[in-house]
Amino acid sequence: MQLMRLGAVGSERPVIRLDDERYVDVSDVVDDFDEAFFGSGRIAELPAIVDARVASGSMGTFAGERIGAPIARPHQILCIGLNYSDHAAETGQAVPSEPILFTKSPNTLVGPMDDVRIPRGSTKPDWEVELGIVIGRRTSYLDSVDEARDAIAGYTVVNDVSERAFQIERGGQWSKGKSAETFNPAGPCLVTPDEIDDVLALDMWLDVNGTRRQTGSTSTMVFDPYFIVHYLSQFLVLEPGDLINTGTPPGVGMGFKPPIWLQPGDVMELGIEGLGSQRQNVVAPRA
Amino acid sequence: MQLMRLGAVGSERPVIRLDDERYVDVSDVVDDFDEAFFGSGRIAELPAIVDARVASGSMGTFAGERIGAPIARPHQILCIGLNYSDHAAETGQAVPSEPILFTKSPNTLVGPMDDVRIPRGSTKPDWEVELGIVIGRRTSYLDSVDEARDAIAGYTVVNDVSERAFQIERGGQWSKGKSAETFNPAGPCLVTPDEIDDVLALDMWLDVNGTRRQTGSTSTMVFDPYFIVHYLSQFLVLEPGDLINTGTPPGVGMGFKPPIWLQPGDVMELGIEGLGSQRQNVVAPRA
Repeated sequence: MQLMRLGAVGSERPVIRLDDERYVDVSDVVDDFDEAFFGSGRIAELPAIVDARVASGSMGTFAGERIGAPIARPHQILCIGLNYSDHAAETGQAVPSEPILFTKSPNTLVGPMDDVRIPRGSTKPDWEVELGIVIGRRTSYLDSVDEARDAIAGYTVVNDVSERAFQIERGGQWSKGKSAETFNPAGPCLVTPDEIDDVLALDMWLDVNGTRRQTGSTSTMVFDPYFIVHYLSQFLVLEPGDLINTGTPPGVGMGFKPPIWLQPGDVMELGIEGLGSQRQNVVAPRA
Repeated sequence: MQLMRLGAVGSERPVIRLDDERYVDVSDVVDDFDEAFFGSGRIAELPAIVDARVASGSMGTFAGERIGAPIARPHQILCIGLNYSDHAAETGQAVPSEPILFTKSPNTLVGPMDDVRIPRGSTKPDWEVELGIVIGRRTSYLDSVDEARDAIAGYTVVNDVSERAFQIERGGQWSKGKSAETFNPAGPCLVTPDEIDDVLALDMWLDVNGTRRQTGSTSTMVFDPYFIVHYLSQFLVLEPGDLINTGTPPGVGMGFKPPIWLQPGDVMELGIEGLGSQRQNVVAPRA
């Protein structure tokens, strides 16, 4: 199943994507794809509802309507740092011995085609294509890595937009460079695990202005999604609908010599095999 | 005005504290002291409602009912690190040249008298009395430090409970040691700024098992609340009801030689002049 949210900012409605052209609107049975929804377990009821509506011809057609993030603003956005060995190398840092955790403000979440706004005072805005995990139930102290499979509602594409000067040169903790408005495009879909043959073998890519900058695969993650969810559950309580950005493969702007930073007018296009693609215009700081 | 929330976990109701004995219940006019409430500006209507109810004798009496955190689970909990020069010294670190930002998971928020649970695998649980700022409106790119005054709904006591091994020895970013369940007792009250003569001259204290461990004053903060709110607003968007923990004065367990760590059965008592006091039992990890 592929969950999406369509409509203007703040009034998105939940739908299930059928294919490139068609969807089933479920906004009459689901308020939103939010913490309450994922916590209710009602996602299990949706396939039967969708099948019935498809059978009766109750389908919508994509017609250029805005695509929101596939989940409502979550309780928290957790991020794993340096989780691809090649990316760690390009930043000049060692592969971590255990996952590095940092966070983004939840209100950074935007749709996959929304503008990314450079923050005021920014000198080093950068891109990061990542696999996003959405948590499916309240999760604490998982007994095993394998148990993490049941805690995952699905996967999505995220762009973990980063301001490297804010992140690294302004006081020692990374969240400061990760939390500007629009810094977390997500979507277009939340794809349930049953639709993904092998989450550890998905190609990833990111272009800036048509030039390929990031090429990777989830096969080279240092810590895989199950390990990450099990690991995080030992330190904090994951809520339904929480988003985990699992780290980026090589090719971020910071890694080029000289580094390449985003500029107003740039276009980022990025995607992950089986999860769809995004396109963001980079816009100037607020006046 | 002193905002409180009374009742069982998850079903607290908003009240206004009058004095040690009495309160006015406002749960019929306010759903909760949450993001929607602070964002609505309706806090300005409460004094007249409270006055009318006091005049008509519609008051409740405190009778041992549980006290919740004075705000509902916020969009985000932001924390400022090493914000007292003496505390920076006791941890062996330099006074920061600008505020250090880290975060706690919002679901760490608990009431001021609730148990603090040591996480599994914890070896270095520690305490931190802090002044908490609650944001009163959506806040981004404040033009001046002075403008931050209007963005603050009020102040509260928080205990920024920390697991130092998780924070410092497990991967390089602090949030990992700050986000275990029960790690953010807050309250008992949210005190509005008009009731505080000088927020930069409030005595602070924390006892463990009756022994004074932290003694400080907000007068020795490196970055004051207005500076912090203005500063953060340059990096991210603050939402109404967001909580900012502004750092701790000297006397944390980590600073003793040898260090002192919390143990199951310990009792923490802490407070800030004019904002009330807290008392938490420290309990063992989940079985």
